[in-house]
Amino acid sequence: MTETLGFIGLGKLGLPIAEKLMEGGFSLRVFNRTAEKATGLVAKGAVAVASPVETAMAGGVVVSIVSDDRALLEVAGDDFCEALGTGIHISMSTVSPVTSRTLAERHARVGGRFVAAPVFGRPEAAAAKKLWICTSGAAASKAAVRPVFDAIGQGVFDFGEDAGAANVVKLAGNFMLTAAIEAMAEASAMAEKNGVARADLLNMLSSTIFNCPIYVNYGKGIVNSQFEPAGFAIPLILKDMHLVQKTASDARAPMPMVNLLVDRYLSMMANGLERYDAVALALGAAEDAGLKWG
Amino acid sequence: MTETLGFIGLGKLGLPIAEKLMEGGFSLRVFNRTAEKATGLVAKGAVAVASPVETAMAGGVVVSIVSDDRALLEVAGDDFCEALGTGIHISMSTVSPVTSRTLAERHARVGGRFVAAPVFGRPEAAAAKKLWICTSGAAASKAAVRPVFDAIGQGVFDFGEDAGAANVVKLAGNFMLTAAIEAMAEASAMAEKNGVARADLLNMLSSTIFNCPIYVNYGKGIVNSQFEPAGFAIPLILKDMHLVQKTASDARAPMPMVNLLVDRYLSMMANGLERYDAVALALGAAEDAGLKWG
Repeated sequence: MTETLGFIGLGKLGLPIAEKLMEGGFSLRVFNRTAEKATGLVAKGAVAVASPVETAMAGGVVVSIVSDDRALLEVAGDDFCEALGTGIHISMSTVSPVTSRTLAERHARVGGRFVAAPVFGRPEAAAAKKLWICTSGAAASKAAVRPVFDAIGQGVFDFGEDAGAANVVKLAGNFMLTAAIEAMAEASAMAEKNGVARADLLNMLSSTIFNCPIYVNYGKGIVNSQFEPAGFAIPLILKDMHLVQKTASDARAPMPMVNLLVDRYLSMMANGLERYDAVALALGAAEDAGLKWG
Repeated sequence: MTETLGFIGLGKLGLPIAEKLMEGGFSLRVFNRTAEKATGLVAKGAVAVASPVETAMAGGVVVSIVSDDRALLEVAGDDFCEALGTGIHISMSTVSPVTSRTLAERHARVGGRFVAAPVFGRPEAAAAKKLWICTSGAAASKAAVRPVFDAIGQGVFDFGEDAGAANVVKLAGNFMLTAAIEAMAEASAMAEKNGVARADLLNMLSSTIFNCPIYVNYGKGIVNSQFEPAGFAIPLILKDMHLVQKTASDARAPMPMVNLLVDRYLSMMANGLERYDAVALALGAAEDAGLKWG
């Protein structure tokens, strides 16, 4: 495949992913709404361009990772699809499966190809080349861009040809992540009100039957009140939970836990906590129980 | 410590624990409501006795693991406490912290000692000597019975002198386990209604960000419909969730997820599914979504 990639979106995850691609030998044409975020990459040889469409070279490959469905649909407009032509658009954003299917059609109309490739992992994981990548789309397209995935992640899981399938998995995983934080929070509040420190509870459980990254990392965050800086900010995870609700609703799949989680995040937004990390979800159950956090 | 232990309760967990104790060199005086369950242990040299009180030797050690608070309070009545005298009662049942504190006082009145030591792990883990043990009670008592824990588990976590503390942790852990099953179930239903097989979803997540025993084992159970035989039967986990509700309620700690989980189990009981394992909780979200299970 081509050695030069287009790259759109230098957010909390986008930036370390772009860095890994450059370390992996790719040249980048980068676009970000806030141009200054590209400074470090440009110093290392990336070319900054002034619009999404300029990242695309006919028959080339563009990676996009932006904040939501609307941003992605704007970035990958008709002009972008035409510029990319028969190339491949790798979409790593957490968006609805519907948006991926829409984009797959948009690209197909001009002979182009679309691969959904949302990733699991916080910014630290991206910086350590430890993302997990979920893919869906045409098999040949996925095979063609495999070197991109190998440069940024520790593993790829494929979910078939339906462009939206990987997004379904990503949404399901983020829901499970959020449910896990809420469960830890409720358990911690109950324990603390019964004289057991949340540190003792969560350290025990996350080193035994829940010894996996989600419980270890978010458990540590809860124990140590690591609410800032936000690696995964409240407005983004609220957006994800809304996507879960919509995707479940469209498919007629009741998910009672999701509504509860959405309400927690709405309450955080209502109380001016937008800047906090997803881990701060734990404040809800604690405050409900009248606990002073500390 | 004494080489002969009293042992009360040969249920799904009690039996393999008793076997590990015998393999570890302890002699046992065993009692079980259904006497036949002791047959295998007796063949290996255990002494079966006709009542809980007969398991106790003055100044000795008795391990109990029974189904609920009521059974435990009956088993460890005044006559039992007097027979045990200055000995130590190790209580491994999943009961409320209130019951542990009650029993600690009951034993203390006759100079006896009480150690709460609920365990995490399914029957398979008990048979493999891989239980995790949570302890609370007087430090000297816990130190005195350490060889018992070493014979049956892979690790001990201590939660201090309050007799009920370990029970709080056990209840919190079982709640988190149940919440994890429900989260997997809701995510799986949403995924399946969107064309992604639950096997693909859960295999991916439980081998990456959720790579820990709860998600791996219960995830496998959900994928393979392993509802029987029940290692952790519905009525027992419903009992645990009721204890979580009561413990949270007494301490004024709202736990919105718990109510949802209790309703799922109540619905299973209402539909004649008592014989199923806790993993069958996953049927709820699937049926709500109109999915045929299989």
